[in-house]
Amino acid sequence: MSYIDSTVTTYIDKKMSGDDPALVRIRRYGIEHHIPIVGNDVAQFLKVQLMALKPKKILEIGTAIGYSGGLMLSACDAHLTTIELSEDMYALAKTHFALLGLTDRVSQHLGDASVVLEQLIQQGHRYDTVFIDAAKGHYLDYFTKADTMLDIGGILIADNVLFNGYTCGLPHIRRQRTIVQRMNVFIDTVIQHPAYQSSLMPIGDGVMMCYKKGLHE
Amino acid sequence: MSYIDSTVTTYIDKKMSGDDPALVRIRRYGIEHHIPIVGNDVAQFLKVQLMALKPKKILEIGTAIGYSGGLMLSACDAHLTTIELSEDMYALAKTHFALLGLTDRVSQHLGDASVVLEQLIQQGHRYDTVFIDAAKGHYLDYFTKADTMLDIGGILIADNVLFNGYTCGLPHIRRQRTIVQRMNVFIDTVIQHPAYQSSLMPIGDGVMMCYKKGLHE
Repeated sequence: MSYIDSTVTTYIDKKMSGDDPALVRIRRYGIEHHIPIVGNDVAQFLKVQLMALKPKKILEIGTAIGYSGGLMLSACDAHLTTIELSEDMYALAKTHFALLGLTDRVSQHLGDASVVLEQLIQQGHRYDTVFIDAAKGHYLDYFTKADTMLDIGGILIADNVLFNGYTCGLPHIRRQRTIVQRMNVFIDTVIQHPAYQSSLMPIGDGVMMCYKKGLHE
Repeated sequence: MSYIDSTVTTYIDKKMSGDDPALVRIRRYGIEHHIPIVGNDVAQFLKVQLMALKPKKILEIGTAIGYSGGLMLSACDAHLTTIELSEDMYALAKTHFALLGLTDRVSQHLGDASVVLEQLIQQGHRYDTVFIDAAKGHYLDYFTKADTMLDIGGILIADNVLFNGYTCGLPHIRRQRTIVQRMNVFIDTVIQHPAYQSSLMPIGDGVMMCYKKGLHE
């Protein structure tokens, strides 16, 4: 998180570090194996949000090793539908959900999120909470598809939207340009969307939280 | 917000700037008269939170000119009880609430927040949402008193807890030391409080959002 003074991020990370032992082990595994998982700041943000909102059906785009999913389920009694592209991650997450005693509360999907989302739409699934934490170049596609299944009154949270501050204009290399442009289109689309009220926050690498008010609220 | 790169804060501020015209006018008045009011980032955070949580009874410590209060009431159909020490601010806020057509939904109190909170406790008032945005050296006292009146399942939001990053250890001058120490005690007390789940975020000058889970959740 280069755009925030490290004294501040270190302080927040330390203060936000409490979690149950099984989740801490999964978190440690992720860090040791260089698997991107949500930081302590984003983790506690999610926890407080889900405790307060008490969702029933969460859709997660980007399972990774199941840390964020496990964490979200620890904060409420929802069922989690989660999508992952990598077979290795999918298998690891399966083990982790079992370890956390959460197997019955999770529907894991292996495949390209855009394709799986299309299938979930066809099957008529509905969700009250969506968490996007996957390929940054595809957030707008994920949003458009997830929106179809998100109840009015529900929320959508997207992680890593500030992309080291590159999204805001901080210097980046040429091959990051497409992701930066796409992320800007995603952010503008959601902020200007008449059915949503959105908040863009410099938590972790940038979190966007959007409330779906519908078109007539 | 010196602890976040200005490219990022400028980007966020610009993206989060939408509000209804009457609120924008009050906001502009605050900025022109150097009255500290919540920034666009904190404003949109509050709006999304209150839209999603739909509170019924909000307690605000620190009315200032009524901008945050007006903003919170625009996001839900709650009643607002708000406390202000300065007679000038109290009068200005009264005008602004009238201008916003919110007079019937606001109970304004003039006086020292610690004393007024004690009176509200004695009168048996209850709240489901508390917003603290007042004298930084007194947050722990405000929290302790507000906690007495906050329902289980409710939330408490405190603004300016990072105090330019001084709270985290960034260099500050001697006369700020007491506030910094007190803010650290406040943050630690709330984070370690068994009845609360807390999230500390570098939004604006630092926002803490705490869900009151109670002692048995």
